[in-house]
Amino acid sequence: MSINPNTPKGTRDYSSEVLLKRNYLKKILQKAFESFAFEPLETTSFEKLSTLTGKYGDEGDRLIFKILNSGEKLKKADLNSFKENDLKKFSFSISEKALRYDLTVPLARYVAGNQNDLIFPFRRYQMQNVWRADRPQHGRFQEFCQCDADIVGVKSLLQEIEMISLFDHIFNDVNLKGVTVKINHRKIIEGIVNLTENKNKLVDYTVAIDKLEKVGIEGVEKELISKGFRESDIDKIKNIIKLEGSPEIILDELEDALKDSNKGLEGINELRYIFSKLNCFEFKSINIKIDLTLARGLNYYTGTIVEVMGPENVKMGSIGGGGRYDDLTNSFGLKNMSGIGVSFGFDRLYLVLDELDLFPININLNTEVLFVNLGNESVEIALNKINKLRLKGVISEIYPSNIKLSKQLNYANKKKIPFVVIIGDEEIKNKKITLKNMSTGEQAQILLSQLEKSIIY
Amino acid sequence: MSINPNTPKGTRDYSSEVLLKRNYLKKILQKAFESFAFEPLETTSFEKLSTLTGKYGDEGDRLIFKILNSGEKLKKADLNSFKENDLKKFSFSISEKALRYDLTVPLARYVAGNQNDLIFPFRRYQMQNVWRADRPQHGRFQEFCQCDADIVGVKSLLQEIEMISLFDHIFNDVNLKGVTVKINHRKIIEGIVNLTENKNKLVDYTVAIDKLEKVGIEGVEKELISKGFRESDIDKIKNIIKLEGSPEIILDELEDALKDSNKGLEGINELRYIFSKLNCFEFKSINIKIDLTLARGLNYYTGTIVEVMGPENVKMGSIGGGGRYDDLTNSFGLKNMSGIGVSFGFDRLYLVLDELDLFPININLNTEVLFVNLGNESVEIALNKINKLRLKGVISEIYPSNIKLSKQLNYANKKKIPFVVIIGDEEIKNKKITLKNMSTGEQAQILLSQLEKSIIY
Repeated sequence: MSINPNTPKGTRDYSSEVLLKRNYLKKILQKAFESFAFEPLETTSFEKLSTLTGKYGDEGDRLIFKILNSGEKLKKADLNSFKENDLKKFSFSISEKALRYDLTVPLARYVAGNQNDLIFPFRRYQMQNVWRADRPQHGRFQEFCQCDADIVGVKSLLQEIEMISLFDHIFNDVNLKGVTVKINHRKIIEGIVNLTENKNKLVDYTVAIDKLEKVGIEGVEKELISKGFRESDIDKIKNIIKLEGSPEIILDELEDALKDSNKGLEGINELRYIFSKLNCFEFKSINIKIDLTLARGLNYYTGTIVEVMGPENVKMGSIGGGGRYDDLTNSFGLKNMSGIGVSFGFDRLYLVLDELDLFPININLNTEVLFVNLGNESVEIALNKINKLRLKGVISEIYPSNIKLSKQLNYANKKKIPFVVIIGDEEIKNKKITLKNMSTGEQAQILLSQLEKSIIY
Repeated sequence: MSINPNTPKGTRDYSSEVLLKRNYLKKILQKAFESFAFEPLETTSFEKLSTLTGKYGDEGDRLIFKILNSGEKLKKADLNSFKENDLKKFSFSISEKALRYDLTVPLARYVAGNQNDLIFPFRRYQMQNVWRADRPQHGRFQEFCQCDADIVGVKSLLQEIEMISLFDHIFNDVNLKGVTVKINHRKIIEGIVNLTENKNKLVDYTVAIDKLEKVGIEGVEKELISKGFRESDIDKIKNIIKLEGSPEIILDELEDALKDSNKGLEGINELRYIFSKLNCFEFKSINIKIDLTLARGLNYYTGTIVEVMGPENVKMGSIGGGGRYDDLTNSFGLKNMSGIGVSFGFDRLYLVLDELDLFPININLNTEVLFVNLGNESVEIALNKINKLRLKGVISEIYPSNIKLSKQLNYANKKKIPFVVIIGDEEIKNKKITLKNMSTGEQAQILLSQLEKSIIY
């Protein structure tokens, strides 16, 4: 019985054609990150389970891929938990490691573990796969690539401004216009919650409002009520989050509404500062707008939060996001390490560029020269020559077996190889080779030493 | 309580300094693979468990990292197997996916699954991490990078020759001399086993002889005897595998010894052909020698096998290997797909180059310009200018907060930033900036527009 050659659901192989485009995009991101003085970092694919658990909320914890203990360690399986249907406890008894869920927690673990060797503010970028046991759908995979840039160890709001400018830089580099950067502030959200009778329910509120796009405002209301918010509170909230207009207008009205919340006013002032400095740039690809419904699910954010939406004519949802966190390294024993990070949804960005046909056409990687195989002596000359071509980076191959010439030429055609070198008896006698241009069909006998010059096209 | 910020054993983070060297090496491999007309491929990090199981021998199966089923699927845990101490069956009841163990089986799965879209012979390279639950030691990790090149769908021995030439090409590119490529042939091994009373024990023999370096010849003898080989058989074997000398001498003597084994003679003839063609090259980095003790543990090899040893002055063991396989895609329902592959042990090659100091010194990635932060107006001018520098790829940053100038300059020194731009009140008044060369200490007021020209160094 043969095994079905499928990949697990929600995962994909990348063929050459796709990879070349992915590598093009990665290179642009990499170059942008580096010009912003972020240094590269790669962390381990799996982490200790204890490193990851409890960082992403209950929902996140469920989506972490755990690695099964191997060998004798499996004997520690806690069957009682299993029988009591405590699958979480059961899984912890047979798993100590888990696959990376994002790049932010590994960064925090790295910073805490290397605090004595790093120069702060520490600016790093990271482009690696992450894994989530999420239900696969369009633009959502179980294995996908994240590209993050973070600045750790400094509170200055200049970093927020840099990050927004990084978005514009990168989207401009890939020619993507009409991107919207939505911005909000966790302290403003706190200020809004403080207007209600439920001052301690900040997390309940952010979890609920974070689902706005999925479940609509009615869904959010329902969840808030189930968490103990009153109708009158919800009305107050709705009146505020519907504020629209220019950043200045929204911030003015918000200042009035949140005048009794110090937290809220702090958030407002920070956004004011950020907007005042954004005028130093002439953004080409992004529009920035305040969205008071933006919450971002992750618990670690404490300041400015952003989410990036692709152009309106492409249905993709968020293609990036980020925010400031004040206590990320705290759980690893390192206090007072404020930082800010942004993340590019690489796979979604790829899909957007692909849909809009924004990948350049000249990034393919094709064999440039095929030496056909006409037997022993022909091959020996070819081997010697091909070695020299390859050393110069000319992509070249020898047809592996001495089959009919027409079949070998057919292979060259299928692979769209532009030049074919023929070394037959006549060529060997004349100490020449025949070079055939596959697109024009022209061919000519030339000296072997002229080959290189002749294929520069 | 804070969490210990360690990575799991046998895994490593890669800091910027290490990554830049790793990326240098990856780029060389990539360029070489591409000049040999291999196209890139990336496969999924995890595969269905059924895809991987049974491909690597019992030992390999044990070293595969399994992923724990999540959610409700965990309820299918087979407690009976657990109680009967059948941990293998138990683990299969709670795991359906596993991490990639090598790049060869995923390739076979990919080729079988995409057989209608691929052009054969299919030449692909792949540089990705693999994971093995192996005991960590020097040069052996649980997560490491493999770099493979394979040609699938053709039997021609020219491929063997190409692969050997690829080794030389790459080691030459990284300036690594004194590499030994050991070569043997599975059919010769079969011929040797056929001389004994244990003609059906080819796998037992290869598994035993594969451990020669670890356990010595006595250890191998012991294992062979435990598998039913007689003393007299072992003497016969020892007399053959100790053959030494030039390839021609070894092959001549071997031909005599294996004259009754058709398989053995086939293997000998193939090696003869390969050596005859290797004369077309002038290898600069590798020496090729026949090693009749070479077996390579993996079961899928059927023809030529090679193993690459680093220079003798570096203790590292194998830094690469490969071989021909005839039936790799068979288990995925695709028959008669002979192929050949080579694999570079990326992490070991890295360690060898590092130990021999063969990484170029000019691959660091450093901030080129730091704008110091002297408050509001200074920052606004800096933000505007830095954006333009970054667009041109100049690595630049602004100091995040307006602290004492000496501290900011200290940061530049620690990060070895060559140029610092100072925009203070005087500079703003004069509509100039001060550019300070940090290595000479020289500084001068220049026009903002002259900045770029002035930092080209």
